Amino acid sequence: MTQPSAIVLLSGGLDSTTCAWLARRDGYRIHALSFDYGQRLAREVGSAEAVARAVGAVEHVVMRFDLGAWGGSSLTSDTPVPQHDDVSGIGASIPNTYVPARNMLFLAFATSFAEARGAEAIYIGVNALDYSGYPDCRPDFIAAFTRVIELGTAVGDGGRAPRIVAPLMRLTKAEIVKLGAELGVEHGLTWSCYMGGDHPCGHCDSCLLRAQGFAQAGIADPTISAR
Amino acid sequence: MTQPSAIVLLSGGLDSTTCAWLARRDGYRIHALSFDYGQRLAREVGSAEAVARAVGAVEHVVMRFDLGAWGGSSLTSDTPVPQHDDVSGIGASIPNTYVPARNMLFLAFATSFAEARGAEAIYIGVNALDYSGYPDCRPDFIAAFTRVIELGTAVGDGGRAPRIVAPLMRLTKAEIVKLGAELGVEHGLTWSCYMGGDHPCGHCDSCLLRAQGFAQAGIADPTISAR
Repeated sequence: MTQPSAIVLLSGGLDSTTCAWLARRDGYRIHALSFDYGQRLAREVGSAEAVARAVGAVEHVVMRFDLGAWGGSSLTSDTPVPQHDDVSGIGASIPNTYVPARNMLFLAFATSFAEARGAEAIYIGVNALDYSGYPDCRPDFIAAFTRVIELGTAVGDGGRAPRIVAPLMRLTKAEIVKLGAELGVEHGLTWSCYMGGDHPCGHCDSCLLRAQGFAQAGIADPTISAR
Repeated sequence: MTQPSAIVLLSGGLDSTTCAWLARRDGYRIHALSFDYGQRLAREVGSAEAVARAVGAVEHVVMRFDLGAWGGSSLTSDTPVPQHDDVSGIGASIPNTYVPARNMLFLAFATSFAEARGAEAIYIGVNALDYSGYPDCRPDFIAAFTRVIELGTAVGDGGRAPRIVAPLMRLTKAEIVKLGAELGVEHGLTWSCYMGGDHPCGHCDSCLLRAQGFAQAGIADPTISAR
């Protein structure tokens, strides 16, 4: 029997990396897909490459396009990324780190890749609990996109359309950290910070949510420890 | 009152060009969006630029990415494009010119652009009658994507999400040609051929459907006449 394939959307962060390990546990050949869309964190792509190698992906495609063409986000323009002292207030409104239609784009590219490879699943590390308030991370968005894939793909037209697997949707960051530890995720390879520096800034939404997750899980973050 | 904005997905072909003129007639400021995704027809982008200028677009973005990274279509690989003597048989099955998830990608980029510009409409020239049998040109696909936009955009979260306008959905190619003539569309600027040559090949699906449309409309195709 041929091993089934899955596309794994891999940013190199904590959530997508945990997804990659879950896809491996679920028995899939992993086709990793990352994006360089003009975001600040070019560092992200390097982490994604390391994670793809570590998890044993059969290929890793980095799709490049420039969302700076229209801006609309502090991650693709010169607008400052918000900095905080703690996680209170994160998620109350949509922050300027929101990239317009980013997960829509990521899922559309993943669907194209899945059709070309005959993959049966698309793993995406969206999370509706400890998140920054982005609208495209919610279960109803994922359900609606599933319908788009069923109707808009050639394989869906008689064959079986790829399904979206969002295994972290209802987990807290602490639960994701613990799950990763159980699966053997190499947390030290991952990168979460929104800033482009050599070390995590410690004050952007992503750093703060990550720090809270490791703290609540009672696990030391190897990325921080290595500083 | 500020003039409302619309994103127009503009390939430079007959259908998208007619859409651009419709958006102008409907009173929109036009933000044209084209794609260079590794397709054969680089010529397409030049036609799109000419159309964008002619219709008075306030800006024209050409988004570049390489779907050749995973192939899956004769338009982004070395696989030959099907050639026919006439239109019989076109649309009976999905041809190899189908680009996996292309309209999904185009609509996702258009949504991102619409969010960044506060545009209220996205014009797309999909057509469910005289088409090549692509699954992502059908009304139920457009309806499903509309739901994705409503759920997955920041403006949809309280504000008004951009709506998809697909005004050619139920028109024949001949009706599109006639409508274009009424609107003053400069048909001579458009380009439909799938091949990358200096002149339309006359034998790909796209050339044959176009020729049939002009013939049935009783209008001479200026692109052919200029040969």
